[in-house]
Amino acid sequence: MGKTMQLVKDMLSGQRLALARVISKIENRDPDLSELMAGIYPKTGRAQIWGITGPPGAGKSTLADRITHCLRKEGKKVAVVAIDPSSPFSGGAILGDRIRMQSHTGDRGVYIRSLGTRGRHGGLSHATKEVVLALDAAGFDRILVETAGVGQTELDILKLAQSILVVLVPESGDSIQVMKAGLMEIADVFAVNKSDRPEADSLVRELATMLQLGVSLQPHDSEKSWLAPVLKTQGNKNLGVEELVAEIEKHQEYLTQTGKRDLKVRDFLMNEVSDILVERLNRSLKGAFNTSSGAELLDQLVSRKIDPYQAADIISKV
Amino acid sequence: MGKTMQLVKDMLSGQRLALARVISKIENRDPDLSELMAGIYPKTGRAQIWGITGPPGAGKSTLADRITHCLRKEGKKVAVVAIDPSSPFSGGAILGDRIRMQSHTGDRGVYIRSLGTRGRHGGLSHATKEVVLALDAAGFDRILVETAGVGQTELDILKLAQSILVVLVPESGDSIQVMKAGLMEIADVFAVNKSDRPEADSLVRELATMLQLGVSLQPHDSEKSWLAPVLKTQGNKNLGVEELVAEIEKHQEYLTQTGKRDLKVRDFLMNEVSDILVERLNRSLKGAFNTSSGAELLDQLVSRKIDPYQAADIISKV
Repeated sequence: MGKTMQLVKDMLSGQRLALARVISKIENRDPDLSELMAGIYPKTGRAQIWGITGPPGAGKSTLADRITHCLRKEGKKVAVVAIDPSSPFSGGAILGDRIRMQSHTGDRGVYIRSLGTRGRHGGLSHATKEVVLALDAAGFDRILVETAGVGQTELDILKLAQSILVVLVPESGDSIQVMKAGLMEIADVFAVNKSDRPEADSLVRELATMLQLGVSLQPHDSEKSWLAPVLKTQGNKNLGVEELVAEIEKHQEYLTQTGKRDLKVRDFLMNEVSDILVERLNRSLKGAFNTSSGAELLDQLVSRKIDPYQAADIISKV
Repeated sequence: MGKTMQLVKDMLSGQRLALARVISKIENRDPDLSELMAGIYPKTGRAQIWGITGPPGAGKSTLADRITHCLRKEGKKVAVVAIDPSSPFSGGAILGDRIRMQSHTGDRGVYIRSLGTRGRHGGLSHATKEVVLALDAAGFDRILVETAGVGQTELDILKLAQSILVVLVPESGDSIQVMKAGLMEIADVFAVNKSDRPEADSLVRELATMLQLGVSLQPHDSEKSWLAPVLKTQGNKNLGVEELVAEIEKHQEYLTQTGKRDLKVRDFLMNEVSDILVERLNRSLKGAFNTSSGAELLDQLVSRKIDPYQAADIISKV
């Protein structure tokens, strides 16, 4: 057995060190990646993937931690993947993981890992999806994917989640900001966190009104459509968390019953193939510009003798 | 002369309706796009591109408006491109543009346009860059690109800006949130907006400290490095705006003197070529999955008989 397949085997048998190494290989886009994923992929498809998103400071991490405790009580193995657009100035992902892990020390049913931003053209989102596949294969029942912000990468990452929890706080800003953030369409469940603060109730009402309006505008069969519930939570006091988990579980049942889970899987897989091909394209492009003919092409671009479309044509023909 | 080239000619001669049509064609990824850009590209390279970013509610739009007025006084023609992750629920981009335009009604030296999110894999960022190229060719001296949020798409869009202004407000959250948002590294100039609010001074101090720390950590020649200045502004009262514009202009001079402008142009052009090829790849992939052999491949993926890397290999060989 090759080294890579041995590593996969160790990971599948529950060795945490092997899992950590697999994740590092995925993050670093290891040359063995396709072999690695060939070993992992057949064992995937069992885990439920929950996305958690919302503006910075909404209390997503605390809530993810509470949800993890709640799921542990149900006997589920839980992995948390936090997307951390960390700065070179900060200690970043590793320090964050240590702090997060503390409340689960010694619990082998919990695995927490932060991923930093890297690359362009969905480099991060692709790596994140493969990390989630690895955690699925490694036997975690629930994988929580936590993203801050609402950029296109985050939305792309959230596509792999079957249920998306959007966490807001009363001071998130007015409803226009919420709409702008593009969160209304992707939410399957809303948590109004820090709900002891004033204006929590008005945010709940506002969200409910907007959601009702959205559903009535949608043309499709209303019996089959899901109206995202809006729940009040206080992550720091562990209030409302069980109810939140129950709603997400209800959404998972809904996905199964309506056949929407299968559609999501198909979309996800098409995107996976696309991500792989885009990644290969970008790698070969990088190489192309590093040759002498590539440098010449770039000079012609800079001097505006050719335009980027012509350059793309030339590169395609090589 | 073909229709497309006539349109480009009209745009270059200053016809606003032609400019609007060109931008729509870029947004809608018109089939004539490569012909269009072939006409536009040789006329580019004159405009300064300024990025404006920061969290929602920081007052970016108001500040962009004030900066526009300030640049108009200097006799510069100004275009503003606002990236608006609009929701299907909201009136979105068009309504926003009308409100924005009001303060410049009748001024033909100002052009404002919002672009909505669409597509994946940098679809938005690619369209945005091409819109900026069109505005450059159309003769605008300064192009302000305003993005909300700090996702990878926004960061990708901001790469085309030569100078990046980051707008924060005292209540943006503590310094850790700022670092997390990945804004520290990309800022060339900071504005602490709404600076009449309490804690503005402490945010200014905190940013200055973090920036000093960042510079001292960087290995490169400190004489050639740029320390982002931190300015206090009140967009609604038009305070501090002239000073802000002066600092951005200083940064532009710095780019020219250090040769960094040329490096930015080269990076931008390589990314352009990559964007074009990725867009083509995704279009052809979509077609591939719509054939009967593509559907079969997808079935094999779903049943986990093959993995996404194997599927990518199969598609590459077709």
